[in-house]
Amino acid sequence: MSDFDDATQVAADGSTAIRDGWDINGNANGGYLMALAARGLRAVAGRPDPISVTGHYLSPGKAGPAQVDASVVKSGRRFATVTGQLSSGGKPVMQLLGAFGDLSLPSSTYEHISLSPPELPPFDECLHRPPSQGAAQVTMMDHLDVRINPAHTGWVHDDRNGVAEMAGWFAFADGRPIDTLALLMVCDVFPPAVFHLDMPLGWVPTIEYTVHVRGIPAPDPVACVFRSQVVQGGFLNEDGEIWDSTGRLVAQSRQLGLTPMV
Amino acid sequence: MSDFDDATQVAADGSTAIRDGWDINGNANGGYLMALAARGLRAVAGRPDPISVTGHYLSPGKAGPAQVDASVVKSGRRFATVTGQLSSGGKPVMQLLGAFGDLSLPSSTYEHISLSPPELPPFDECLHRPPSQGAAQVTMMDHLDVRINPAHTGWVHDDRNGVAEMAGWFAFADGRPIDTLALLMVCDVFPPAVFHLDMPLGWVPTIEYTVHVRGIPAPDPVACVFRSQVVQGGFLNEDGEIWDSTGRLVAQSRQLGLTPMV
Repeated sequence: MSDFDDATQVAADGSTAIRDGWDINGNANGGYLMALAARGLRAVAGRPDPISVTGHYLSPGKAGPAQVDASVVKSGRRFATVTGQLSSGGKPVMQLLGAFGDLSLPSSTYEHISLSPPELPPFDECLHRPPSQGAAQVTMMDHLDVRINPAHTGWVHDDRNGVAEMAGWFAFADGRPIDTLALLMVCDVFPPAVFHLDMPLGWVPTIEYTVHVRGIPAPDPVACVFRSQVVQGGFLNEDGEIWDSTGRLVAQSRQLGLTPMV
Repeated sequence: MSDFDDATQVAADGSTAIRDGWDINGNANGGYLMALAARGLRAVAGRPDPISVTGHYLSPGKAGPAQVDASVVKSGRRFATVTGQLSSGGKPVMQLLGAFGDLSLPSSTYEHISLSPPELPPFDECLHRPPSQGAAQVTMMDHLDVRINPAHTGWVHDDRNGVAEMAGWFAFADGRPIDTLALLMVCDVFPPAVFHLDMPLGWVPTIEYTVHVRGIPAPDPVACVFRSQVVQGGFLNEDGEIWDSTGRLVAQSRQLGLTPMV
């Protein structure tokens, strides 16, 4: 079983565990938590693909036993809408709302695409995400192969380029294929795009995180780009795009985060 | 009482009504439904401002008695997270998840903004949103003053420019100030940006709609822009930005919609 499938197991009664080793300094990664919880929601939905999942983060996810409670709000012809909560120690960690469906079904063939994939050096010429950020340990990098565009790594040695954009490649370290469930995590495993600004490096607490899955990824690593266009009034957004090896957009994400008070 | 406040009244027990006159051909506008439901969620939250609200649309909202059921998932120091449902005739119309807070509180003053407001002719030189779309009647235009950039009105006489961008001004017809609750509706009252493409004009069913309120609007009309960057696989996104009269971004929205099968 792959690392990711092992770490996102949810039993039929919703019991699960937040695993050690998917965290930054002891707090589980938000994308990992969404994938874990959405696996529980997806089982209740009885559909193969998350289409749109929103999560609100309520308290840090610490390693240990956890529970996914999920219930179907409506099961329609094309989608099942599910509401749910991931909790641990009786405390809510994340509240979720999602629509699940089947992206392999026939659909309108009309296309209009005005975005394009990020221009990236080849996978092997991009740089591993460092396993630490200042004093913080990013343990999940043991399981993931996150490769950052070398032009976007100045922040590692405090050389900030002032452009809030972080791009690179994603693959699982053990070669697990990237499916639609995994995309919910992929949109949150890069260093924050605001690391390129003159803000203190550190944890950017997420209030809300939505992923729209726009397609089933083809095999091979996916190209990823994240941009924070508006940091203002104590809040910031981070918009992400994930493109597969055929040049097709497979996920769009947006986070609303808090700017650290300085 | 303003038209909008009258049409979004929710009693303390959650009873409400979906009002006639806020619809397109008998189906209540999605932004109006979100504002109505969020008014109920906000009351339960006990905080003045929606910060981030997500709604999933489950069935068309028809005029008539309705109910907002809302419950607080977590009430924290800065935010209250609320889950809720708008239903009518015992049928779910919309499922919601939102965070509410107080945008007037002091916050980090760090700013980095790489977007800018849409370039628009003055309000009086922009054109009223037509009160009909083909055979469909857009009754809510009695209450709203939606002014479209003249360069974005070719679709009215079937002259599509091929650029999925719709921009213009918004004000209430009765001059009601635009507050943070109203922004939840404003992000959904323009004609779909995809009307500029060679797709059939018609109803674009929304699956999911999220609004992040980024600030309290200054008085006067707001400048609005909506873009659909990716229409593919039967789905489309529409991303919106609302800018106030001081040039400050006050809301960001994203919808995931269905492309009509042709």
